[in-house]
Amino acid sequence: MKTTALIMAGGRGERFWPRSRRNLPKQFLSMTDDGKTMIQLTVERIRPLVELEDVYIATNASYKALVLEQLPGLPEQNILCEPVGRNTAPCIGLGAAHIAKKYEDAVMLVLPSDHLIKRNDVFADTLRAAVGVAEAGENLVTIGITPNYPETGYGYIRYSKETRQGEAYAVERFVEKPDRETAKQYLAEGTYLWNSGMFVWKLSTIWKNFAKYLPEMKAGLETIGTAVGTPREDDVLQEVFPRLASESIDYGIMEKAENIFILPGDFGWDDVGSWLAVGRIRKTDGQNNVLSGNVVSVGSSDCVIQGGGKLIAAVGLRDMIVVDTEDATLICAKESAGDIKKVLEQLRDAGRDEYL
Amino acid sequence: MKTTALIMAGGRGERFWPRSRRNLPKQFLSMTDDGKTMIQLTVERIRPLVELEDVYIATNASYKALVLEQLPGLPEQNILCEPVGRNTAPCIGLGAAHIAKKYEDAVMLVLPSDHLIKRNDVFADTLRAAVGVAEAGENLVTIGITPNYPETGYGYIRYSKETRQGEAYAVERFVEKPDRETAKQYLAEGTYLWNSGMFVWKLSTIWKNFAKYLPEMKAGLETIGTAVGTPREDDVLQEVFPRLASESIDYGIMEKAENIFILPGDFGWDDVGSWLAVGRIRKTDGQNNVLSGNVVSVGSSDCVIQGGGKLIAAVGLRDMIVVDTEDATLICAKESAGDIKKVLEQLRDAGRDEYL
Repeated sequence: MKTTALIMAGGRGERFWPRSRRNLPKQFLSMTDDGKTMIQLTVERIRPLVELEDVYIATNASYKALVLEQLPGLPEQNILCEPVGRNTAPCIGLGAAHIAKKYEDAVMLVLPSDHLIKRNDVFADTLRAAVGVAEAGENLVTIGITPNYPETGYGYIRYSKETRQGEAYAVERFVEKPDRETAKQYLAEGTYLWNSGMFVWKLSTIWKNFAKYLPEMKAGLETIGTAVGTPREDDVLQEVFPRLASESIDYGIMEKAENIFILPGDFGWDDVGSWLAVGRIRKTDGQNNVLSGNVVSVGSSDCVIQGGGKLIAAVGLRDMIVVDTEDATLICAKESAGDIKKVLEQLRDAGRDEYL
Repeated sequence: MKTTALIMAGGRGERFWPRSRRNLPKQFLSMTDDGKTMIQLTVERIRPLVELEDVYIATNASYKALVLEQLPGLPEQNILCEPVGRNTAPCIGLGAAHIAKKYEDAVMLVLPSDHLIKRNDVFADTLRAAVGVAEAGENLVTIGITPNYPETGYGYIRYSKETRQGEAYAVERFVEKPDRETAKQYLAEGTYLWNSGMFVWKLSTIWKNFAKYLPEMKAGLETIGTAVGTPREDDVLQEVFPRLASESIDYGIMEKAENIFILPGDFGWDDVGSWLAVGRIRKTDGQNNVLSGNVVSVGSSDCVIQGGGKLIAAVGLRDMIVVDTEDATLICAKESAGDIKKVLEQLRDAGRDEYL
C-alpha cells in the first residue's frame, strides 16, 4: 500500500515576530544552522517513506506561492488551500478527500510543518513502525514524544504498557495541558507521552471514523471530494469548507475512537515554540550565545541575537533575545518571550499593519 | 571691560556611540527634550554676558562646518581649528592669542561645550560674580560644582571658607579623581567642589601666568598670534601648534599659580558623561523609561531607548540602553555602559571604520 503524507502548513504563528509575519509564518522560515526552512526539513525527513508526488500540503491561498518556491518539484495540485482555518479535523479531511481521488486506499501520514527533529533516521524508523501498525488493522496511530521534563505547554497521552500492537501501545486517554505538579506526576509514572500532533492511519480507517464521529463533516468533505479535478472544484470548496465545524482531530475523533495506538518517539523533537528554542537548536559560542548576522558582542552571555544588515552592538546582555529585520528590531528578555504577542496587539490597535 | 568666551569643542567622545561618531561628536548632538545641540545650549546660556561676535570656538578643522551650521551668526574667524589635540593649555592659549588681536584686555570665559545646565539664570549670575572677581585683580577664577554624592569620576577642588574675594573662595588645592571612601570624606568635609573645567580670568592675567609657568608655550602662542589675520596665519599655526607641549591648564597653571579663586555653582550641572545621563536629563514615562522615536514598549522599565526610523520593540527590558541609528543599533545593559568603548575597539581592530 502506498504511503502518502499530509503536511499541515496553515499556521500564522506570531511568536517569531519580527521574522515571522502574516505573510511569512514560522514554517517558511529557517531556524537551523543549515539554512533550510522548517517545511523543507519536514518534507525532507519523510522522503524515505513517501514520494514527493504523494506529499500534500494543507495551507491557505496566501502561502501557496511560498510553498511552490520552497518545495520545487511538488505538484501544484498537491497544495490544498483552505478557504478559512477550521482546525485540524476539516484540514485532515480535506487531505483525505484529495488522496482518495488518487488511491483507493493508502496509508496517510499527518504531520505539522513547523517542528524540528534532530535524528531523521530514528524518526523514519518510528514512522515505518507506525505505518506497519496502521496497515495491520483499523488502527489510528499517533507518535508520542518521550518527555524529559515536566512541560506544562503540551497535551499528554497516557498509554498502557500491557496492550501492544507491534511496537505501538494502546492509548488509554488524551489529557489537556497539565499544571506543573500534574506534569511532574505524569513524568514519574512513565506512561505518559507528549502529544506531538503526528498521526498515521489508512485512508479507509480515518473515513470510517469520520463517518462514526463526525458524519456531517464527512458529508461536506465528500461533496468537496466529488468536485476535485472538475471545473467546479474551487467553487465547491469555497462554499462548503467554511461551513464545516471547527474541530480538532484530537477532540473530534482521537479521544473517542477505539483502536488508538501510540509509538514513543525519541528522535530529538522540538516544537520550536518560541525564540527560546533557537538557543537550544543552534550552535552557541563560548558564552552560550547564538549569534548570527552583523553582530558585535561585548560581555554578553546566554543570548539569541539574529542580526541583519545593520550592525547590532550587544554590550553586557544576559538572557536576551534580539532579532533585527529590515523594518523592525525585537529586543526581549528571555523570561518575557511570551509577551511578544502584546507587541503585535499594540501594533494592531495602532493600525500599524505594515509591521504585522 | 568686554567679556569674551572660549568654548572648547574639539572632543571626540566615544561614549555616545552609535549616535556620536568620529565626524559627529557629542557636543554637536542634542541630548535634551528641546532638540538643541549641546554646543548651541552652551552658547545660548552665556549670551546674557557675551556678544556672539566675542564667542570663540576651539575645535578641529573637521568640525568647522558643523559649528557654522549649528551656530549661525557666529563670525567664521571665531572658529579656531587646532591642527592636533594638545590638551587644554595650548587650546586656551590659542583662544587668548586670538582674543588679544581684538581687545587690549578683556575678561575671558573658558567653557566646555558638552555639559548641561538646568538653571541658566543661576549659571549667568554665577558667571557675573566670577567676572567681578576676575576683574578685581590678577585672579584666576574657576567654577566648582557643589557635589551631591561621592562621585569618583571627577577631580575635586578644596577651598578655604575663610579667604574670600567677593563671592569666591581661595582655592587650597586641586585633587585627582578620588576613590569612593575619599570621595565620601570630601563630601562630609564640605570644603570640596567638583572641578567643572570652567574658568574666568582677564587676558592679561592668564598671559602673565603662561609667562611664569609655561614660558615656552607662551612663545609659541605669540608666534601664532602675530600671524593671525595675515596670509601666513594658517601656515604658522600648522607649523607651531603641533610642537606645543600637550598639557592641561589644571596641571600646567592652576595647580601652581597664586590667586586662584573658586565660586560654588549650584545650577543643575550635568557633564552628560554617558548614556546613563540621558535617564537623568530627559522626561520619563510612568515606568521610568526615556523613550523617543519609533518604539513600542511592553513591560519595560528604567530604560533609555532612542529609536530611529526602524521600529524597536522592547519587551520586558530592565535598566537597558538602546540606541538605534541608520547603520548601527546599540543594546547595552546600563551597568555595562563603560564597555561601549570596547565595541569601538573591536570595530577598529576589524577595520570596520565606517561605524566609528
